[in-house]
Amino acid sequence: MARRLVVIGGDAGGMAAATQARRRDDDLEIVALERGNWTSYSACGIPYVVGGAVADLDQLVVRTPDEFRQRSRIDVRMHHEAMAIDLVAGKVEVRDHVHERTIRLPFDDLVLGTGARPLRPDLPGIDLPFVHGVQTLDDAADLLAHADKIRCREVVIVGSGYIGLEMAEAFVARGARVTLVEGANQVMRSLDRDMAGLVQAALERFGVDVRLDSPAKAFEDGTVVTEEGQFAADLVVLGLGVVPNSELAADAGIELGVRNSIRVDRRQQTSAAGVWAAGDSCESYHLVSRRPVHIALGTVTNRQARVAGINIGGGYATFPGVVGTAVTKICNTEVGRTGLSEQEADEAGLATVSAKIDSTTRAGYFPGNKPITVKLVAERVTGRLLGAQIVGEEGAAKRIDIAAVAITAGMTVHELIDVDLSYAPPFSPVWDPVATAARQAARAVDEAR
Amino acid sequence: MARRLVVIGGDAGGMAAATQARRRDDDLEIVALERGNWTSYSACGIPYVVGGAVADLDQLVVRTPDEFRQRSRIDVRMHHEAMAIDLVAGKVEVRDHVHERTIRLPFDDLVLGTGARPLRPDLPGIDLPFVHGVQTLDDAADLLAHADKIRCREVVIVGSGYIGLEMAEAFVARGARVTLVEGANQVMRSLDRDMAGLVQAALERFGVDVRLDSPAKAFEDGTVVTEEGQFAADLVVLGLGVVPNSELAADAGIELGVRNSIRVDRRQQTSAAGVWAAGDSCESYHLVSRRPVHIALGTVTNRQARVAGINIGGGYATFPGVVGTAVTKICNTEVGRTGLSEQEADEAGLATVSAKIDSTTRAGYFPGNKPITVKLVAERVTGRLLGAQIVGEEGAAKRIDIAAVAITAGMTVHELIDVDLSYAPPFSPVWDPVATAARQAARAVDEAR
Repeated sequence: MARRLVVIGGDAGGMAAATQARRRDDDLEIVALERGNWTSYSACGIPYVVGGAVADLDQLVVRTPDEFRQRSRIDVRMHHEAMAIDLVAGKVEVRDHVHERTIRLPFDDLVLGTGARPLRPDLPGIDLPFVHGVQTLDDAADLLAHADKIRCREVVIVGSGYIGLEMAEAFVARGARVTLVEGANQVMRSLDRDMAGLVQAALERFGVDVRLDSPAKAFEDGTVVTEEGQFAADLVVLGLGVVPNSELAADAGIELGVRNSIRVDRRQQTSAAGVWAAGDSCESYHLVSRRPVHIALGTVTNRQARVAGINIGGGYATFPGVVGTAVTKICNTEVGRTGLSEQEADEAGLATVSAKIDSTTRAGYFPGNKPITVKLVAERVTGRLLGAQIVGEEGAAKRIDIAAVAITAGMTVHELIDVDLSYAPPFSPVWDPVATAARQAARAVDEAR
Repeated sequence: MARRLVVIGGDAGGMAAATQARRRDDDLEIVALERGNWTSYSACGIPYVVGGAVADLDQLVVRTPDEFRQRSRIDVRMHHEAMAIDLVAGKVEVRDHVHERTIRLPFDDLVLGTGARPLRPDLPGIDLPFVHGVQTLDDAADLLAHADKIRCREVVIVGSGYIGLEMAEAFVARGARVTLVEGANQVMRSLDRDMAGLVQAALERFGVDVRLDSPAKAFEDGTVVTEEGQFAADLVVLGLGVVPNSELAADAGIELGVRNSIRVDRRQQTSAAGVWAAGDSCESYHLVSRRPVHIALGTVTNRQARVAGINIGGGYATFPGVVGTAVTKICNTEVGRTGLSEQEADEAGLATVSAKIDSTTRAGYFPGNKPITVKLVAERVTGRLLGAQIVGEEGAAKRIDIAAVAITAGMTVHELIDVDLSYAPPFSPVWDPVATAARQAARAVDEAR
């Protein structure tokens, strides 16, 4: 009998692993279970559908169930929800919501692609229907239906992570009055506070009412209550981060790691042999802090899923880890970050120096040049590049990849100065802003020695 | 008496070294000699002045002589031409074209920032006034005056390096009928032929008449003669590459290197102690081919000049070398390259595999996404990334920096797959095109093993 791979979750974590396994093993029987209405989609695109830049949610689908069936011979079962995993018997208990029945599905290999869900702190009224999280396309469909129905004029965003800020912009674009309430003393805590200030200014220029030091305390219909006052809201979006959907794994006795994400080895195998995990439900390893982290991003998901799929398909692959790269465009402002912020480095016990420079995205005389601010964080004494943050306008943020590669390679800021980066007037000043920042960071390292 | 640094050449190679030396040594006396009318300018911007995107040549000046005098206390002497160097006496013979006199200027340190000039092959009529090279702002001023005067309708570009192609576009933008005659069987020989074909197609879509296998044989007033026929020309631009201005150095007995560029050590010192060189006049070391090369680019110039200046100022710095990164935007098409092309790798004795992929600059569903083609060249067996080439539309080419850093770090294409590159729908597909190309290149390496 053919080996059977069962995949729990029809989005990238599970399905990219499945297609990769199929490439290597033609005989594998593959069954994929998805409890919702969509497979393999770009959740990162949801804010652009809400804001109107992308026409509808179907645009975000990378592969439909039928495409998986036809191209990869994957038996995709929609509206099928995994309820329990029996590791001893090697079976998944599945609730088939179509036929309203429960089956027990045997597996040889199992991929947990269960994803994550928006964090919903235990606050009064958090489960009221006007409070939306945005993670899956089903979430997004609910949100859009609600927004269309009530023709919302007042929106409150709670929290200022990537999704929160992107949704703030999206609702301004829809014509709503948007208030952002953030419990910390800065937006976007993945940035240092000085860089976050530039993002906040961009939000405010765009018309978002930003309230710092204002943690949400309660939700009443039509109102968000904070310590600093109440804010009228036809609709609330939660942007407080995500928590891994790891309960199914935990209940089966599979080991969890940081922030209750599913612990995996370098081949993406969980503590149970033959059970693999990839994506937002599982742990990563941070190459700079050398600590396990939970980072829920599509890039990491796809890379982990590829590794899991190669291993399931009989190959050998390991996932080296992440450096925490992320990029977004908010209110005409581009934001990129990678590695450790000053605060994260401090938490990891690393002593740092930093440098921050202002430059332009193109040659200063070239039409369309835009401002860019680059901050680099380097380790004291060694000068090793630990992190980078970029805030700027069009053409700024994708430069973060220069730092991402340099950090991965263990370069010092002194080495980064002389990397042969590309230059022509439509693309950069003769010293790319990242190299200019490296020069200043190298001086800071030298002075601190 | 103060030590005296004499700088020959008022553009970046000399002047960036001088300002760097000044930062470290307040007491240094610095004299800079420039035979032309401008100091420290962006020659790379000349095509954009010709094409009209930048208003005038003065926009390209980074620092004027007065700014150097005031900010860096550099005694800049315009219209002063170095005629000979006496290494034994430690003096430069200088022709002062303002006062029509010759002086002998003693130096303790000397920087050769003499630059390069357009290659003018020994062909009949090459010195006719309608045949222009474009290297200095003085060249550009001559060209612009000529173009304005004759209201040129027919322009022939000879050669298809960066400058040639950029000037072709610029003259189309001015309304001229432009023919490009190229001796080889492809444009832009820094690319492999398959990628060059994409550039040629872009030129042709833009209206440039491209003639391959058509080396220029002679110039007669109003005509460029090739083996394949004659082309009418009100004005001709040479784009055949450059030759280093190294005669002054050679006549003084200073050692030359590859293609008659000035040989330098890792500190940018020539074979003569206390005589330094930086920029288009001197040699670089190619980190991939491990051979000396002559690469005339502003980025390299500025990095070499910084190193020379630190050493002159009493510090210690070395220039590690180049990986041959270059980028340009031609006829709405962006072109980037770094490392070795397949042909260059072959010439360096390296066996390769390659991969080429088509993708988009943004998520496929995101408005404004543009096509991008990425080609990677990897060493057989080891999988080490040797080179990358990118041709695409807006947002494509600056990604070449990802490969430039990876090559500098000695990464394999397998390692490049898992680098944590940035992703958000406005910036990239979830697999950045460079990572997608790395996946395909890794498969090619594995298959060839």
